[in-house]
Amino acid sequence: MQKKNTKIKVMPLGGMNEIGKNMTLIEYKDEIIIIDCGLSFPEEEMLGVDIVIPDISYVLKNKEKVKGIFLTHGHEDHIGALPYVLKRINVPIYGTKLTLGLLEFKLNEHRIKNVKLNVVKPRDIINAGNMKIEFIRVNHSIPDACALAIHTELGALFHSGDFKVDYTPIDSDIMDLQRIAEIGKKGVLLMFAESTNVEREGSTMSEKSVGNTLDEIFSTAKGRIIVASFASNVHRIQQIINSAEKYNRKVSVSGRSMVNVFGVASSLGYLNVKEDTVIDINEIDDYKKEEVVIITTGSQGEPMSALSRMATNEHRKLDIREGDLVVISAHPIPGNEKLVSRVINQLFERGADVIYEDVHVSGHACKDELKLLHRLIKPKYFIPVHGEYRHLKQHKELAINLGMSEDRVNILSNGSVFEIDREGGSITGTIPSGNILVDGLGVGDVGNIVLRDRKHLSEDGLMVVVVTINKEDGMVLAGPDIISRGFVYVRESEDLMSSAKKLVKKSLDDCMTKNIREWAYLKNTIKEDLKSFLYERTKRNPMILPIIMEV
Amino acid sequence: MQKKNTKIKVMPLGGMNEIGKNMTLIEYKDEIIIIDCGLSFPEEEMLGVDIVIPDISYVLKNKEKVKGIFLTHGHEDHIGALPYVLKRINVPIYGTKLTLGLLEFKLNEHRIKNVKLNVVKPRDIINAGNMKIEFIRVNHSIPDACALAIHTELGALFHSGDFKVDYTPIDSDIMDLQRIAEIGKKGVLLMFAESTNVEREGSTMSEKSVGNTLDEIFSTAKGRIIVASFASNVHRIQQIINSAEKYNRKVSVSGRSMVNVFGVASSLGYLNVKEDTVIDINEIDDYKKEEVVIITTGSQGEPMSALSRMATNEHRKLDIREGDLVVISAHPIPGNEKLVSRVINQLFERGADVIYEDVHVSGHACKDELKLLHRLIKPKYFIPVHGEYRHLKQHKELAINLGMSEDRVNILSNGSVFEIDREGGSITGTIPSGNILVDGLGVGDVGNIVLRDRKHLSEDGLMVVVVTINKEDGMVLAGPDIISRGFVYVRESEDLMSSAKKLVKKSLDDCMTKNIREWAYLKNTIKEDLKSFLYERTKRNPMILPIIMEV
Repeated sequence: MQKKNTKIKVMPLGGMNEIGKNMTLIEYKDEIIIIDCGLSFPEEEMLGVDIVIPDISYVLKNKEKVKGIFLTHGHEDHIGALPYVLKRINVPIYGTKLTLGLLEFKLNEHRIKNVKLNVVKPRDIINAGNMKIEFIRVNHSIPDACALAIHTELGALFHSGDFKVDYTPIDSDIMDLQRIAEIGKKGVLLMFAESTNVEREGSTMSEKSVGNTLDEIFSTAKGRIIVASFASNVHRIQQIINSAEKYNRKVSVSGRSMVNVFGVASSLGYLNVKEDTVIDINEIDDYKKEEVVIITTGSQGEPMSALSRMATNEHRKLDIREGDLVVISAHPIPGNEKLVSRVINQLFERGADVIYEDVHVSGHACKDELKLLHRLIKPKYFIPVHGEYRHLKQHKELAINLGMSEDRVNILSNGSVFEIDREGGSITGTIPSGNILVDGLGVGDVGNIVLRDRKHLSEDGLMVVVVTINKEDGMVLAGPDIISRGFVYVRESEDLMSSAKKLVKKSLDDCMTKNIREWAYLKNTIKEDLKSFLYERTKRNPMILPIIMEV
Repeated sequence: MQKKNTKIKVMPLGGMNEIGKNMTLIEYKDEIIIIDCGLSFPEEEMLGVDIVIPDISYVLKNKEKVKGIFLTHGHEDHIGALPYVLKRINVPIYGTKLTLGLLEFKLNEHRIKNVKLNVVKPRDIINAGNMKIEFIRVNHSIPDACALAIHTELGALFHSGDFKVDYTPIDSDIMDLQRIAEIGKKGVLLMFAESTNVEREGSTMSEKSVGNTLDEIFSTAKGRIIVASFASNVHRIQQIINSAEKYNRKVSVSGRSMVNVFGVASSLGYLNVKEDTVIDINEIDDYKKEEVVIITTGSQGEPMSALSRMATNEHRKLDIREGDLVVISAHPIPGNEKLVSRVINQLFERGADVIYEDVHVSGHACKDELKLLHRLIKPKYFIPVHGEYRHLKQHKELAINLGMSEDRVNILSNGSVFEIDREGGSITGTIPSGNILVDGLGVGDVGNIVLRDRKHLSEDGLMVVVVTINKEDGMVLAGPDIISRGFVYVRESEDLMSSAKKLVKKSLDDCMTKNIREWAYLKNTIKEDLKSFLYERTKRNPMILPIIMEV
């Protein structure tokens, strides 16, 4: 017991082997701090699922140990699970002003009250018992992003958060390289660093370079300009506003999340807009087409987003016309390529011009920036985070190439328990972890069985067979009736349906003849007979639901 | 009537606003020739659909006019619909040797006999009545690809097929630029040219460059090498074999389509392999690990492909081990990015090294190659083909930038009827066209209603409500019973289910009290009441199927 207490336990609940739902627990001397609490978006096979959050069983079981949740920045994959987690456990939250502003908005939507939100500034150090958590400014695709240093008696841990090194950031708040170097100099026991762009050579370009591109585009545009971007990329929004003001255009904002973030960021002072620049979307037709910019959501081609609705003429306020210029200021996130392409096609078809390449830079560090971080921190031990396995693996190799010995770099899984002290670290066990699926109000009630059924239904539909039989003698009183959905177009398959009905009748008659009355057997016979029949006739395999009613 | 007969009608049935299912009809003086007859793979929303083929109603209606189907090359999106089309109409097929070899294999699988397959060689001219069809060699990611010139009294039409300009092709058969220039010089009335890579600057690299990369990889590899590629990319396969022979490795082939194409291409003389190079997959363990190469399918991460099965240890003959080197010699086709990424992660997790970038070149012409073609052909009129709208649009702009006047470049849709003679051309009408969905044995029996139901079922599952009532007095004799699938995990939602049951009972009682016995009304009441109840409790919207049995 004594020994256990003197080590630091690291337990990731998300962010390992995935880009999404980041959450890491650090436990030391019976105290736990939590870094981030994000959601991820469902994989393709998670049919009907809205979002995915981490499994927090361990946190709930050890509630009384938790000293606080420390947020690196305000992206969904770092704060998005909080509305669900805070319904189960109320602990203090620490984060910078914008991060907490965005969180607060989200908590209000979920009607969650009484959460202690503690605004911190970079270089603030929070005393959480045996761990002191220091916030350190980094650059990222959202303002106010931080890395964390966790100071302990055993040495410091350093967590990069999501970062890039931007020497010319929009808000002039550059990554606090000096403090990072200082922490590194004092000695870092263990570093966590993100791995998103570890496959890319060189360095990520400065956000400012997008401003130049926008200026160029704005300087020659003749009609309305519609720019789609990530709502949370406040610096991008700022640059669109800058270009608009430079070229005498008014700005209107469209799309729920864009309006929300714009509101939060403006009210907290993160957007610098001239008083008369912003106009209501209802006013845009009061201006000439060369005097208008619309900033909108939908850069990922999301079918319900504002841009998609504009492209299909389903937006209530604005439709795309000949002469409009649409700028997609984002790259498709892997998996969204086809959705984005569809919107681009639709926009072109409506006569717009569309610019969709090279008006974006990433918010994540490429190889050279990661190397810089490794050199500044010089950690004794290293855990790559925030990546699929390929990224973690390659980040491990990057560290080894910089001179770390292989046994000092550990790739963890979600749920791994990694224990470390000055003598070294190793994986010593696991805690519950995994994907908790949120579907509507249900949290965790959709699991593998439900998903398997949804998949089956989605591929071949279903066929319901109902029959009412006499309790006394087992005679068929009504039916069999057959109802199908998602299987064939019934009106054109009457023959198939009536043959299926006859087949079921025959199966029942056979059972009757053999004097078989057991429900399970009857149902199974119907199912198997019908399955073979349908497969032979159609090479399809609908879900078959036999229902027997007794009267 | 006279006037109509003297024009050439161009009617695309596929390939417009899509990359997939290429098929174009050319009708002149009551004769029709068909260029290509491809399939496309289902879009994400086409749940459960296997493949998509063109609507050939117009062809069937004008059967007697059809002189033949002329195939540019053997890719699925150019020949894949033939097994379905040839079941409805038997017309002569013309294509080069490999194209027809691949087609024949496919027709055998479908047990289609008595098809007239006419092997042509480049520069052959087929006399199809008033149209003479000339095959002209081009380069592409499959050998034996051709462009077509259709010579008529009104002038020549030129169809590029899929092409790139490869100055150093693997088979030394370079694109017949001289003949193309000659045809251009004589005058081309109308050109069709593919648009896949119109967004890319410069020229596509030579296939030979991949050979150099493979050589480099093979020269340093210490363990087994597994190379995944497109089965039909015979030149790529040749280069893998070349590298294998150079570095004294045996080659084994895995994956159904790879084995098939390897067989066809070998037997037709398109692969140059030393006698003892190829070994059976069962023999690979007889050799040292540095003496083996496995060529496999699965470069797109297809879950059932050989590579995916190796990566998840589900392949019967071969599992990936520590020390293996996997080379993915392909780029993900848009939409497959996540699947490919998943396989890469799995391979890394099994301890393999994976190379997945820069071991591939495209088979399609980039901007400069397209410009070359335009300059060589100098058509009077131009129709961009083989592309989504964005590609067609940008290919149109490319032509205009080269000096064509805007009114001479026409973007068609599938089903457009474009009529042209020496005076010019225009869209004069439409014919039936669209996506015919193939699901199992069903061709065209899955339409919007079935797909809508599948989508609904996939998102929220279903709830079946059954009740048996007395014919005489409408009293409930059995039920209501409730069965759900894909909605909630029933064992953990007993409370919800019993509440739902009570609700249905109440709805029925209410109707009874009001003396309402009409089925449609009863069903609708159950549906609406249950829908509101479930939505309120779960914020989900399962399909509700009320079934009433009368005895």
